[in-house]
Amino acid sequence: MTLREGLLRVRAGEAAHPEAVDALTRLAADHGTPLYVYDAETIREKARALRAAFEPRFPRLGLRYALKANTNVEIVKRVLAEGLAPEVVSEGEVRAALRAGAAGRDVLFTSSSKSPSEIDFALRHDVLLNVDNLDELAQVSAAALRLGTTARISFRINPGVDPDTLHQINTGIPESKFGVHLDGGHARAAYALARALPALAITGVHCHIGSQITETAGYEKTARRMLAFVRELKEELGLTLSFVDLGGGLGIPFADGQAVMTPEDLARALKPIWDEEVELLGYEPELWIEPGRYLVAQAGLMVARVNSVKTTPVKTFVNVDAGFNTLMRPALYGAAHRVRIVGRDGEPMLLDVAGDVCETGDILAEGRLLPRPSAGDLVAFLDAGAYGFVMASEYNARPLPAEVLVDGDAVRVIRKRGTWEELHRSEPEVGPPL
Amino acid sequence: MTLREGLLRVRAGEAAHPEAVDALTRLAADHGTPLYVYDAETIREKARALRAAFEPRFPRLGLRYALKANTNVEIVKRVLAEGLAPEVVSEGEVRAALRAGAAGRDVLFTSSSKSPSEIDFALRHDVLLNVDNLDELAQVSAAALRLGTTARISFRINPGVDPDTLHQINTGIPESKFGVHLDGGHARAAYALARALPALAITGVHCHIGSQITETAGYEKTARRMLAFVRELKEELGLTLSFVDLGGGLGIPFADGQAVMTPEDLARALKPIWDEEVELLGYEPELWIEPGRYLVAQAGLMVARVNSVKTTPVKTFVNVDAGFNTLMRPALYGAAHRVRIVGRDGEPMLLDVAGDVCETGDILAEGRLLPRPSAGDLVAFLDAGAYGFVMASEYNARPLPAEVLVDGDAVRVIRKRGTWEELHRSEPEVGPPL
Repeated sequence: MTLREGLLRVRAGEAAHPEAVDALTRLAADHGTPLYVYDAETIREKARALRAAFEPRFPRLGLRYALKANTNVEIVKRVLAEGLAPEVVSEGEVRAALRAGAAGRDVLFTSSSKSPSEIDFALRHDVLLNVDNLDELAQVSAAALRLGTTARISFRINPGVDPDTLHQINTGIPESKFGVHLDGGHARAAYALARALPALAITGVHCHIGSQITETAGYEKTARRMLAFVRELKEELGLTLSFVDLGGGLGIPFADGQAVMTPEDLARALKPIWDEEVELLGYEPELWIEPGRYLVAQAGLMVARVNSVKTTPVKTFVNVDAGFNTLMRPALYGAAHRVRIVGRDGEPMLLDVAGDVCETGDILAEGRLLPRPSAGDLVAFLDAGAYGFVMASEYNARPLPAEVLVDGDAVRVIRKRGTWEELHRSEPEVGPPL
Repeated sequence: MTLREGLLRVRAGEAAHPEAVDALTRLAADHGTPLYVYDAETIREKARALRAAFEPRFPRLGLRYALKANTNVEIVKRVLAEGLAPEVVSEGEVRAALRAGAAGRDVLFTSSSKSPSEIDFALRHDVLLNVDNLDELAQVSAAALRLGTTARISFRINPGVDPDTLHQINTGIPESKFGVHLDGGHARAAYALARALPALAITGVHCHIGSQITETAGYEKTARRMLAFVRELKEELGLTLSFVDLGGGLGIPFADGQAVMTPEDLARALKPIWDEEVELLGYEPELWIEPGRYLVAQAGLMVARVNSVKTTPVKTFVNVDAGFNTLMRPALYGAAHRVRIVGRDGEPMLLDVAGDVCETGDILAEGRLLPRPSAGDLVAFLDAGAYGFVMASEYNARPLPAEVLVDGDAVRVIRKRGTWEELHRSEPEVGPPL
């Protein structure tokens, strides 16, 4: 058996199977806990499923990876190796994409708040700037003029579509901070202004209605609105665009047996709308799609060790050696990651898995039916490959976890565990290290 | 004028005053943004106000600083220099306390989830272990036996008191993950067990009912319950304790003009209860109090720069170069830090100050009446000295902010700004740096 087979058993709910126990025991012994474990093959599978769904249907296609889901360069490299281009949200992510081997001109930079130095860095590397607002547009034009270059731009459009996801990650509704509103002629005015300003090359249009979307309806409505807008740009302003980016946001199942929209579902739903609108439009721009979570979430597990088990008159707590500093999503979004107790198959009982951060809100999993573990047992949190490590902090003076990548039976450390010294790395010297 | 005078003007709501503008402009020019700025004198003032309230009333007293509020060693040193001892929640914080010059035996270590290596480290440094549960108690006894030492312990008790604060930081209620329940005889049974186990020295009792508490009532109720319990321990088990720790949690005002409990209010409220109960008890343990936020929150500002200002049909957003990766409290707790627009005194309008993290939930301040700034302006977030930098992350591939300490007109960099290289510091080498 390979390590990968053990990981797949954990994911499938067979965490008491000897292969599952052996795989996680070896990884935890070799690399410590808390530990992020990624399966390279799952990343490849997801990228290939995405391509298989879209490539046959959309001959003019650009598939992108939203790096913010997981910015580890070794992960980014593996996603890009499957034929995806980078979509980034900061200068740091532009740099991560370049480190992973991408060319600057293949990078799309989307953010609602770009600093002057970020704009300059992007322009120097010929990155495509997805402009959020008119203030930023003026800054981009001025910077390109100053640098003697032409800024390739698109606009992020707020299409006014509610895809029915969590408020915090719902980005296409009217009150969102993102993009230029489509309604009321604001988006058209933005393109008109861009055409009038110097040193800008208008290349496309972008939108993104949110994250963790599990149904196609929001995308269908968005595609219609965006393509109608592209037609308006042609008819009113004489603009032709080289791409229409419908964003990312493909959700994943967070519960056993939960059915969610697949790339196949999404591609099939978009196809007739796209074809119909393209015919009306009279030319075919590239369709761009930019998932993050879909590509990497399921590839990752976060593994923690039980420090103690405690029964109070009200609850039973499993206290582990990870917390919201390790995995932020439960505390920040109320996200419910599936939990597997490794090597136990006793009668399930109602447990709270509590983090080691000194706050009441640091409960990693609340009220789950799980076999009771003992101190020293391992606990795996599924679907932690996206928005897991990247949101980790050193809060409570805990070093950052390590990240390892499993490829079959090979294991590569793709981020060494943080150290005690590192916690104070940029503070003034205070004598000999402890 | 000194830099400090400028900072005090910002805090007082005079952020358009030339001294305020000059101070923040100099700091931002010299150290960049986003930037944490601490005022050393405010830390000293708060520590002295705490001592002035408690020392005259409680001859047997132990005042502690809860390091988790701000773990920068230069900050810790300055708090400890005012006569406070460290209260910590992790091995990393024990180490920070030692770095700051504390002796291990003066450190109190409280956490609901201690790992075996944390327990060992604490025992090797003679740290006082505040035990959370019976599973942990057995581990501490076994570890002390193995190391040939005696573990000095107390128990964290859950007194079942609701101090009326945010749920996430409300720690003394029955469903909390913290401590041994006082009700039902659980706490007494824990002490009885501790007396029976080897290599343990019972030294005291601890509780902590929550954070950001603004009224004395919860403390009064807690003090009565805890001291009645101490009497029960004497009468039933023959135990005398050297301290009773009533926790921290002293709140601060988060709005202009808000009145909150002061240390003076708290000390005055506790005094008659303490005296009465001590007389019944027949001996006087030390009273310990362990604030974190109270000592350092108001000393700190987080300074960001405006990247762009954007008006949508629904809202006006001020997009700044900081986000929930820089200051987590608004996104995580809905906390409302006061915001000052530096150098503007125009007619206030309704603004949302939006962070630069690519998530809809990254709004640092929602719906505030503020003068409209322009790109390039500085924005200060008040009361950011506690749970500010320590909760920061590198999410969205943004380097950590710098921290500077102002003492009169002297400025000391107490944490250098993070670097692009640092984002990938523990990843495998990928060729020449960018």
